[in-house]
Amino acid sequence: MEWKPDKQARLPVYKQIAKRLEEQIVSGELPPGSSLPAERVLARRFGVNRGTVSAAYEELRASGLLQSWPGSGTWVSRHLWGVKQIPNWHKYTNGGAFLPAYPLAKRISEVSFDPAIINLAKAELMPSMIPSLPSREMESLLRCGFELGYAHPKGNPELRRLIADHVREQYGIVASPEEILVTSGAQQALHLISLCLLSPGDAVAMEGPSYFYSLPLFTSAGLRLYRLPMDEQGAQVGQVYELYQSQRIRMVFVNPTYHNPTGVVWSESRRRELLDLCRELRIPLVEDDAYGALTLPGSPKPPPPIKAMDPDGVVLYVNSLSKTIAPGLRIGWVIGPVSVIDRLADAKQQMDFGTSSVSQQLAQPYLGKSVWEEQMARLQAFLHEQRQTMLAVLEKELAGLADWKTPLGSYHVWCRLRLPADEQCLLDAAIREGVIFTPGSVYGAEPGWLRLTYAWAGKADVEEGVRRLARALRTALSN
Amino acid sequence: MEWKPDKQARLPVYKQIAKRLEEQIVSGELPPGSSLPAERVLARRFGVNRGTVSAAYEELRASGLLQSWPGSGTWVSRHLWGVKQIPNWHKYTNGGAFLPAYPLAKRISEVSFDPAIINLAKAELMPSMIPSLPSREMESLLRCGFELGYAHPKGNPELRRLIADHVREQYGIVASPEEILVTSGAQQALHLISLCLLSPGDAVAMEGPSYFYSLPLFTSAGLRLYRLPMDEQGAQVGQVYELYQSQRIRMVFVNPTYHNPTGVVWSESRRRELLDLCRELRIPLVEDDAYGALTLPGSPKPPPPIKAMDPDGVVLYVNSLSKTIAPGLRIGWVIGPVSVIDRLADAKQQMDFGTSSVSQQLAQPYLGKSVWEEQMARLQAFLHEQRQTMLAVLEKELAGLADWKTPLGSYHVWCRLRLPADEQCLLDAAIREGVIFTPGSVYGAEPGWLRLTYAWAGKADVEEGVRRLARALRTALSN
Repeated sequence: MEWKPDKQARLPVYKQIAKRLEEQIVSGELPPGSSLPAERVLARRFGVNRGTVSAAYEELRASGLLQSWPGSGTWVSRHLWGVKQIPNWHKYTNGGAFLPAYPLAKRISEVSFDPAIINLAKAELMPSMIPSLPSREMESLLRCGFELGYAHPKGNPELRRLIADHVREQYGIVASPEEILVTSGAQQALHLISLCLLSPGDAVAMEGPSYFYSLPLFTSAGLRLYRLPMDEQGAQVGQVYELYQSQRIRMVFVNPTYHNPTGVVWSESRRRELLDLCRELRIPLVEDDAYGALTLPGSPKPPPPIKAMDPDGVVLYVNSLSKTIAPGLRIGWVIGPVSVIDRLADAKQQMDFGTSSVSQQLAQPYLGKSVWEEQMARLQAFLHEQRQTMLAVLEKELAGLADWKTPLGSYHVWCRLRLPADEQCLLDAAIREGVIFTPGSVYGAEPGWLRLTYAWAGKADVEEGVRRLARALRTALSN
Repeated sequence: MEWKPDKQARLPVYKQIAKRLEEQIVSGELPPGSSLPAERVLARRFGVNRGTVSAAYEELRASGLLQSWPGSGTWVSRHLWGVKQIPNWHKYTNGGAFLPAYPLAKRISEVSFDPAIINLAKAELMPSMIPSLPSREMESLLRCGFELGYAHPKGNPELRRLIADHVREQYGIVASPEEILVTSGAQQALHLISLCLLSPGDAVAMEGPSYFYSLPLFTSAGLRLYRLPMDEQGAQVGQVYELYQSQRIRMVFVNPTYHNPTGVVWSESRRRELLDLCRELRIPLVEDDAYGALTLPGSPKPPPPIKAMDPDGVVLYVNSLSKTIAPGLRIGWVIGPVSVIDRLADAKQQMDFGTSSVSQQLAQPYLGKSVWEEQMARLQAFLHEQRQTMLAVLEKELAGLADWKTPLGSYHVWCRLRLPADEQCLLDAAIREGVIFTPGSVYGAEPGWLRLTYAWAGKADVEEGVRRLARALRTALSN
């Protein structure tokens, strides 16, 4: 009897197919160099969508087991890493409790090293917008010498003092240095929260779509993710109560200012409503504010972070210097009650013995009020011009094909296609045209959404990138 | 009926007791400020050892629920962090998949911030032995400016090239930059391996005692740990085969050169024997070589790392700059087959988006052959003198009370007490005298072992520290 995927099983169907093919490759049933059936053919045989087979193939391509070339089909790689090795590393690299990145995300990040590709996916400042190290402060650091021992488990005390001043001045958040943990970017803060404060099987709620959804680290931690529907005021808070009743959710994750990817700014009343509900239900609220400082000129000032309205310690507030100063410093922080911060610091010690002490020293000058405000003014002006460039070329190239709103801050335009195009096909076509974007499904959006980022590519590249995307879209729609 | 711990349960008895007391504190049954029974009394009531109650109290002290003072007993903290909070953070900080540090280890690290304490526990170079940044290289870095964008997922390409040269020159290990992942110290490499290549329930073998045993990250990952008995040649390799048969162990972790904490140097034949067996069983071998470069003057050169004998990619080799250059840089690496390194790099991206790019640039000058060799010569001479100081004062103060061997390299003397002293009592007495050491149980040793480190404290402090320890030992033995 022929093998078929089990649609009732817990493992997603595409993973079952990938696993099955992998077994055949490892056992030698499918030897190196042998051809695989076309996606359509295999989809029919297994009684699944073509996209499912496509995802399975993509996964095996990503792990190096398959290769394909447009027009030439797909075959088993001629050089198999891991498969013939002693030990059978393949068995290990495909196991493990920590899940690999999603194939689409991985594909995008691999292609992004190709200099011929215009990158509208990368949520990073172009290098010229990263400020050089303030020279006076640098000189004095060099004169005194860096401290190069292990840092304090919670982070360099002086840096934490500066962060406390910074968040009070810029966001109205009152926190003592003891309530702050320095992390390797906001990403590590989320990782620590998911590992230390939640257990496998716990349910959590987050905006749908959401950047958080793109993080396999939540699924790796065994969490059950529930989405809160969004409107223009933010997420629908009533749903939190329903999820609490039906799923016993234990934590809520939100990104209320310039929400990634949609750009939504939660209204002040929606923020209060969520905070009040979480306080009442005694559920912690994690607030990611990575883009909060990036209001574009002409946009209204956003409401204060939820943390600024929270005297009771309901909120864990996460932020970083990655989107505003320099991602390479890997300086982020989480603010919350001392007992929680202590627990996270203890785990961080065990994982990496603390954040680089040179990074922690180099980050300090940037948090001074005048250096910070100068950089924000420069950045906001730059992002404003970039946004105008992107909106103008979108209007010219995609009017009639897609819709979008003018973002009020941050890096991204969130677009919806008027006609649905297969996401994988569109991404492939875009890569062939020489541009990448982030498909909405990476954030758990329904089909037909894309995130276009205007912070990394220069003006001419933003224009050319959108032109290439328009060509790719026409190709994908004509298929 | 009175509550008693369940000795058959999976949760350790001391955790059950801690949980029970915590519930009583949270429920208000034991209000803030109320006294707890003496350890002996509670131990009798529950039918357990006094040490078990002591560990439960210690855990609750560490989490801030209990306080105690020598001579005044133990009481519920008057200021309860977390307990009265909204949300009930306490429920979260005591849950989570990632386990907190062991109470003993936590106690030691808390006390170590007290400047009056002489620290013979800290495995860190004294600040004067950390080389200042090579000024010529620093100037040129500053002139050209740091790269401050996100780094390559595997690490800065130039740094990986330098690491490849360095391990070939210094250790005879042949690896291409593609086979190297830069991590936040060796610690993060071990964390990545445990999360990505192993699954909860997997069995692994490691030397007994072992530094690895001190890492809750292995137990957090749900691994079952099995110990390999040690002799003067290294671990007993035959046991690996038996564990493979009986427990299906999936990975072996070793630290064959200046093993932490025992100081053992594995013989070359024992290294080959283990490598051959792992190759035959197709089990990966993780080799931690953090102290391998620190041969003391007059000691024989150790055999090459196992990785240098491994053309087949059986070994994942882990090393760092923390014990040789500067822990604050947080630069470590893992070397292995490309497919494995790619998998670990993918997970690292998800956890922290890569290691600080400034650290990665600042680390580069230290790996140049002449800078490296100069630092090693200086360090080895320093460590030799420190070892001599410690051996001399041990001979004077502890002869008759303890035994030890002369370490051939690295930072530590591994001592065995002739008469067993309760570890917790000895540590408490030592803290009262003003000195800390690492009790052997932290590494899974039988009672009566201690690790004394001579890298952090200056000459006079090493001498005074051992004198204080001798006084503490007499107190503990007289109890």
